[in-house]
Amino acid sequence: MAISLRKARTIIRKALDKGREMELKPLTVVVLDAGGHVQACEREDGAAPGRFAIAQGKAYGAVMLGMAGTAQMARAEQQAYFMTAVNGVYGGQVVPVPGGVLVRDKKGAVIGAVGVTGDTSDNDAAAAMAGIEAAALTAEI
Amino acid sequence: MAISLRKARTIIRKALDKGREMELKPLTVVVLDAGGHVQACEREDGAAPGRFAIAQGKAYGAVMLGMAGTAQMARAEQQAYFMTAVNGVYGGQVVPVPGGVLVRDKKGAVIGAVGVTGDTSDNDAAAAMAGIEAAALTAEI
Amino acid sequence: MAISLRKARTIIRKALDKGREMELKPLTVVVLDAGGHVQACEREDGAAPGRFAIAQGKAYGAVMLGMAGTAQMARAEQQAYFMTAVNGVYGGQVVPVPGGVLVRDKKGAVIGAVGVTGDTSDNDAAAAMAGIEAAALTAEI
Amino acid sequence: MAISLRKARTIIRKALDKGREMELKPLTVVVLDAGGHVQACEREDGAAPGRFAIAQGKAYGAVMLGMAGTAQMARAEQQAYFMTAVNGVYGGQVVPVPGGVLVRDKKGAVIGAVGVTGDTSDNDAAAAMAGIEAAALTAEI
Repeated sequence: MAISLRKARTIIRKALDKGREMELKPLTVVVLDAGGHVQACEREDGAAPGRFAIAQGKAYGAVMLGMAGTAQMARAEQQAYFMTAVNGVYGGQVVPVPGGVLVRDKKGAVIGAVGVTGDTSDNDAAAAMAGIEAAALTAEI
Repeated sequence: MAISLRKARTIIRKALDKGREMELKPLTVVVLDAGGHVQACEREDGAAPGRFAIAQGKAYGAVMLGMAGTAQMARAEQQAYFMTAVNGVYGGQVVPVPGGVLVRDKKGAVIGAVGVTGDTSDNDAAAAMAGIEAAALTAEI
Repeated sequence: MAISLRKARTIIRKALDKGREMELKPLTVVVLDAGGHVQACEREDGAAPGRFAIAQGKAYGAVMLGMAGTAQMARAEQQAYFMTAVNGVYGGQVVPVPGGVLVRDKKGAVIGAVGVTGDTSDNDAAAAMAGIEAAALTAEI
Repeated sequence: MAISLRKARTIIRKALDKGREMELKPLTVVVLDAGGHVQACEREDGAAPGRFAIAQGKAYGAVMLGMAGTAQMARAEQQAYFMTAVNGVYGGQVVPVPGGVLVRDKKGAVIGAVGVTGDTSDNDAAAAMAGIEAAALTAEI
């Protein structure tokens, strides 16, 4: 199974709605497929130009390692050189903090990841989770 | 002036609609801002996973050089080493073919670019143009 | 659908068997998933050390572009700067010649790619095709 | 002497068997030759797509430095900047944790390395060791 474009649009719109509801700063949301490739993304007006790469990096590490942002951050805090090395083999594309959220289907298989950036990492993760759940998928933050 | 997220959404939806109307293969559409940074993108179901990077590369060269895909292709055919050198300074991110389309406002200023990939380069450019015009902006293919 | 490890093993063994039957030089076979990531590979004794990267590069371009090696080679011959640019956006990982073979399921969806190197490009492709067909999948060379 | 493809297959199969026996998460096993080049690899169904690069990185550091994963980790913990610098000269390809296991022949010469990832680093190393010993070679974890 994969995240269809239709589902990806729902994820993005509902994540942005959640951001407005929580009165967060402008958000950027990226949806990656199960291979770490971009399916869809939107950057809100007022978000800084480099935010796409941060959102992508949060989602990329999640899907490539099969480990969500919260777990990546814990590992980075315990064993910083490990996450540095992981970034070496992945070309520096991993941003190991909350806001990189795994997306699972009903059987528990990882079918992609969502990356959100713009506010605090925890708020970013909350927005991502709202989007994923609105698409009837399971989020692992 | 910039391409607002609202306008970027219109560009993407109308470009994809044009693709369905023309019965093109699955398309990927990327909208970049005036600094070459991703504003929004969508990859249709069935498009190959690497298509985001191709669409981004078409738009990136357009906005960074201020030269649309058709002009870039002409230059590549006349002077291949020039476009190779351009790619050296831009980190290999430029794909110099039609489907990289400049977006101008009413005064003629470049406010971003759209990259489309999936079908022939000319069809890709036609889809991009349809999207840009639907957003009441000016396309230079 | 994906290429299971069980199917990947069949592809590799049967491709190598085909190579022995055709009396080819030592082969290297790489199986990538639908996102371009390594599922399995084997390099025969006597194959040069750098052959893994060549086999991977043949398969990588196929799956990322959704275009098999024969079509990539035709494009490279008609429009060399395009394939050079593609390699820029894909980090130089594409080897656009036969021996990069798309793998499709019964519905026609791309579920991965196989890369073979060691003999002539056409013989490499024949070995890949033998492996893919032995796994009851469809090869596009 | 080198690790023959026959021996590499034994290493991989027995490492995966050990993983199933210990009820580990899905594993990825990479066998590198004495020059650090891929000889064979397999990624089990359910392993994250980026696991090949992690397994390769564990084995690569081992064979390039002639120092197994446990020793690399000790060095990283004592002198993080040294392992960071090593990664600079090796292009960021080293993952300095257990699960990168040196393979020695009967005379004690390094003939390659095995990288395993998927479970805890210690369990990964145990699976690698089981594979190497099943191939009648000596493991240094």
